[in-house]
Amino acid sequence: MSHLKKVQGGVCTAHEFVAGGISCDIKGEGKDRVDLALVYSLRNSVAAATFTTNQVKAAPVKVSMKYMNSRNIRAVILNSGNANACTGKQGFDDAVSMTKTAAEALNLQSQQVLVCSTGRIGVPMPMGKITLKISSLASVLSREGGEIAARAIMTSDTHPKESARELQMNGVSVRVGGMAKGAGMINPNMATMLCVITTDATISLSVLRKALSEAVEHSFNRITIDGDMSTNDTVIVLANGASGGPSIRANSAEYAMFLEALHSVCLDLARMIVLDGEGVSKFVEVEVRGAVNHTEARSAAEAVANSILLKCAWAGNDPNWGRIMDALGYSGAKIEEDRIDIFLDQLPMVIGGVAGPTPLANLRQVASGKAFRIGIDLKLGGGRYAALTTDLTEEYVRLNLGE
Amino acid sequence: MSHLKKVQGGVCTAHEFVAGGISCDIKGEGKDRVDLALVYSLRNSVAAATFTTNQVKAAPVKVSMKYMNSRNIRAVILNSGNANACTGKQGFDDAVSMTKTAAEALNLQSQQVLVCSTGRIGVPMPMGKITLKISSLASVLSREGGEIAARAIMTSDTHPKESARELQMNGVSVRVGGMAKGAGMINPNMATMLCVITTDATISLSVLRKALSEAVEHSFNRITIDGDMSTNDTVIVLANGASGGPSIRANSAEYAMFLEALHSVCLDLARMIVLDGEGVSKFVEVEVRGAVNHTEARSAAEAVANSILLKCAWAGNDPNWGRIMDALGYSGAKIEEDRIDIFLDQLPMVIGGVAGPTPLANLRQVASGKAFRIGIDLKLGGGRYAALTTDLTEEYVRLNLGE
Repeated sequence: MSHLKKVQGGVCTAHEFVAGGISCDIKGEGKDRVDLALVYSLRNSVAAATFTTNQVKAAPVKVSMKYMNSRNIRAVILNSGNANACTGKQGFDDAVSMTKTAAEALNLQSQQVLVCSTGRIGVPMPMGKITLKISSLASVLSREGGEIAARAIMTSDTHPKESARELQMNGVSVRVGGMAKGAGMINPNMATMLCVITTDATISLSVLRKALSEAVEHSFNRITIDGDMSTNDTVIVLANGASGGPSIRANSAEYAMFLEALHSVCLDLARMIVLDGEGVSKFVEVEVRGAVNHTEARSAAEAVANSILLKCAWAGNDPNWGRIMDALGYSGAKIEEDRIDIFLDQLPMVIGGVAGPTPLANLRQVASGKAFRIGIDLKLGGGRYAALTTDLTEEYVRLNLGE
Repeated sequence: MSHLKKVQGGVCTAHEFVAGGISCDIKGEGKDRVDLALVYSLRNSVAAATFTTNQVKAAPVKVSMKYMNSRNIRAVILNSGNANACTGKQGFDDAVSMTKTAAEALNLQSQQVLVCSTGRIGVPMPMGKITLKISSLASVLSREGGEIAARAIMTSDTHPKESARELQMNGVSVRVGGMAKGAGMINPNMATMLCVITTDATISLSVLRKALSEAVEHSFNRITIDGDMSTNDTVIVLANGASGGPSIRANSAEYAMFLEALHSVCLDLARMIVLDGEGVSKFVEVEVRGAVNHTEARSAAEAVANSILLKCAWAGNDPNWGRIMDALGYSGAKIEEDRIDIFLDQLPMVIGGVAGPTPLANLRQVASGKAFRIGIDLKLGGGRYAALTTDLTEEYVRLNLGE
């Protein structure tokens, strides 16, 4: 029997976490949909996070980054409808104010509350509406509030995204659960990926940081849809020790178990992000091996995963290996054309840089599926990397034509 | 009166060049369209060229690169319908064979004939058809054959692309003319840019190389449509001295005049390439200034010019400066968010990193045009770069769905 089990739930699956969502009409459309979320640990907790590497960082990212050195971070306030990005000094003050109001309602210090926003860029936050609602929201947090919180951070997402795991660690049940938003980067103003994960594992800040970094590297960082990172991208994990499980030390067997659970939740959420969105019809994994090193494997995989022409071809069920060779050639990774093998799922598509033995009809059949894998072997070294991507459909363009 | 004049014509505008085109049915569709072209200098000439930087190089590129050190290069044989790329040893032999057959017909050595191909990748060349027709083609070359040659290299291009200039140099008329193909990189299998330019200027090989390099850097190298270089991209210039004009020395006044003419022809052809293609509705110039240096200006301009989401937004007449900020942020170029100014044509769209004073309606009006310019000032240094790009329409995707 496996020690790891998939379970229903999200940010409230781990013990002693509560959450909720409320409607503020942040977008100003007069619609009654939840757009403000709060996640809160009932006991002391530690938080690790990764933020966008974009040099243009939204105000909530700047504020949360500043707070990351605080002790005992216990809550995250999140909103959709407005990214609070490119909003200058006022935007920064507004993000601080969100943490302050939430902290007051929860009897915490501002620095114990992180903040995330997603939505339109360059529009001032309607703080009048938000400030009033934060206190109401704090008073309705519950163990059942995970799903409504996941709904409150949706933008063009077609469904809330949650995932959870339960693992047995030395006879004790430990839980990891999370929520995310991001929908195939459908809307140019709403391309943000946000994720909050909670766990009742007993883990130090330094070990939690290490685990998050490893889990994100092999999940969210593999999602390449438009080749860019938005101004607001944030992944946060809070750990509160409420499971009463053993303290997880770096490089221990318990660490490996915890990392597997955390990575599984991250990968579930990353896959949901890729597959969501009306403009996406296929999920494509591009796996490069045999590159000179890891960095070059990544360049090669990302060049293939980001090729506009390939993404269009996939939408038309066309495997188009010529365009894959082309992308490998301009990727910057070292290649030797006549060594390259390319597989579509298990079918040899290119062998030694020229057409492989598989009939085109068979390749097209695989490329017609909802998901397939392109395996590329450069045969030069030990570098490996897998990128997750999608096709590019006419509907995608239609949805992105702007306001 | 200017020394430089735009004139009708292409590869036969310069004196003592002849050209022609013929139908071979290289694609095997049974259609009677010209698909094989030959350009030939009636007197001794020198040739300079730039080739794709893609590590996957088509066989004709490999062969032409190998021949570039030969003396007295006098002809170029070109075909559409098949790229002769990813075709292994046989492809290389086929490309050599094309030069050999053309050379025999013209009483030259193989190494005096360059070769270019464009079309499908990974399909063997139908040499039986081609070899037979090369001799027939060589016998019908004429001073009037420029346009049919330009037609013979078209793939998804909607019209042949030719441009020419005549300049007065110390009382002597000197001509530069050329042809190109490439159509907004519409078809995944036909994304190649080919260009042949001829001139009757009197110029040494080393000076011609320098001029071509400068002219290409500020024209074809600025075209960024899919962010990639195809396996077959080639620009060739042949100079035969038939004008009887003065010998052009590096850095002389004559050099400056010649470079202006050559650059004008290259820029005309580059613009035609960008604007052609049914999937393109807008021509967008992205000009970055104030970057730390030239390389960073280029990274910044290309990140903006290649953003899928921005290209979709432009198709919908949406100026979307938030997405421009986002692209600048992930471009790798150093930026300081609160220094950035962005202009749409002359309208201030972003000032100091936040929304500028121009009403959205006015910005949308400019973005609704067939062509506009995005001017970005990073205010950090003297680096400048301009990229030429297009929007991304639903029609583009439809045309790229594959076979």
